[in-house]
Amino acid sequence: MAPVPVTAAVILIGNEILSGRTQDANLGYLAEQLNAVGVRVMEARVVADIEADIVAAVNACRARYDYVFTTGGIGPTHDDISSAAVAKAFGVPLLLNAEAAGRLERHYPAGKLNDARLRMAMVPQGASLIDNPISAAPGFRLDNVFVLAGVPVIMRAMFDGLAHTLSGGAPMRSRTFRTNLAEGTMAADLGALQDTYADVEIGSYPSFGRPGEQGVRIVLRGTDAARLAAAGDAFVAMAEVLGGSAVEIEIAGK
Amino acid sequence: MAPVPVTAAVILIGNEILSGRTQDANLGYLAEQLNAVGVRVMEARVVADIEADIVAAVNACRARYDYVFTTGGIGPTHDDISSAAVAKAFGVPLLLNAEAAGRLERHYPAGKLNDARLRMAMVPQGASLIDNPISAAPGFRLDNVFVLAGVPVIMRAMFDGLAHTLSGGAPMRSRTFRTNLAEGTMAADLGALQDTYADVEIGSYPSFGRPGEQGVRIVLRGTDAARLAAAGDAFVAMAEVLGGSAVEIEIAGK
Repeated sequence: MAPVPVTAAVILIGNEILSGRTQDANLGYLAEQLNAVGVRVMEARVVADIEADIVAAVNACRARYDYVFTTGGIGPTHDDISSAAVAKAFGVPLLLNAEAAGRLERHYPAGKLNDARLRMAMVPQGASLIDNPISAAPGFRLDNVFVLAGVPVIMRAMFDGLAHTLSGGAPMRSRTFRTNLAEGTMAADLGALQDTYADVEIGSYPSFGRPGEQGVRIVLRGTDAARLAAAGDAFVAMAEVLGGSAVEIEIAGK
Repeated sequence: MAPVPVTAAVILIGNEILSGRTQDANLGYLAEQLNAVGVRVMEARVVADIEADIVAAVNACRARYDYVFTTGGIGPTHDDISSAAVAKAFGVPLLLNAEAAGRLERHYPAGKLNDARLRMAMVPQGASLIDNPISAAPGFRLDNVFVLAGVPVIMRAMFDGLAHTLSGGAPMRSRTFRTNLAEGTMAADLGALQDTYADVEIGSYPSFGRPGEQGVRIVLRGTDAARLAAAGDAFVAMAEVLGGSAVEIEIAGK
């Protein structure tokens, strides 16, 4: 029987990503790190700094997936509304957290912890804090929702500190090949291979115009090492039968 | 009266983005190009190669926004299911499009247009084709949904060819400043500035640890040039009153 996958959604909060001004750097990191502990990101959303939109996204995702990770919107300025929105999503009040306030007091020089900064100690009732080793202001966890900073270096430090608390399933392994066969040439056989190895996910990704990366990448992913090995070998044999070649360029997962 | 904004959602389709294996390069391009023609991206979603997930995302977004753009999943392999999913979302059949088939026939050498490649000529009933000047296989538009390729160079060529058909609102203009003031130092005044200029969106984005990019970026966005100019000048004056400095690093929009 196939293992039950443990799933997650990532919600990136911030107008700057939707305007194209900032290229997100958080989804890829979270996806890879979650994958390493056996949690699979099934969906991601980018939402604006609009409370109703954040509430709707959090509630849709927390009902559907085992874990939800949000990034962004927990700083001291007026456009940082994630903590209040998550409190609203859960229908609980946003309260000053004494432990969080203490961390901020110790972090800032005397007289610098003003009202705006103290807002960063407001967390939803019932939340537990997520450590921020970079700039003190914590994230928080409420039920299955983890609220993280948007600045990548802080987000990563927060995640790295909490990763061990997640209950993952079987980690996803992968084999990646590059082939000189065109997608259309191998599509029928590749579809048949997918049917034979239904428990291995086979993805086909063409590259156009990238120097040194011409050709098609074939990625096989699965939790069963033996099945993954067999599917990969079958793909290599298939490529040869079709008159092409396939070179393994990456193996990932334990 | 403030102009009615014309809105869009972007749906990125593909397991490779959710696994962290591929960094998306399409959202930023679409957001900037749409912005230039007065269309604002309000939400983005990354969905897996799962038909029900694509159907749900397309239907949620097409009901809510003026335009929807999908990228990915329109190639010849088994994991390319976007066209079928969009047909299902609209409740219409997926049919062989004679014009699309003709384009593929002219593109491929004799004998190379096999069944897998011919799948790329299957579009939902009622759809109109979107030109693909790179590799022939077209995208399509159905009502307010535009289905584009995932390979960035093809997606961009498709978008550039259709951009003139969009009915945009007032283009968003922006002024971007870098300041040496900490977010927490200016948060109260910045919030007051936002209240005064409610029609200008003011975002505050700290950088940590990026060489040459220390400090906070303040981005002001709005459709009214005079209001945007006034808000920017007020921000510079505010920074000086707080004992800091603000340098304008970018002006965007006509």
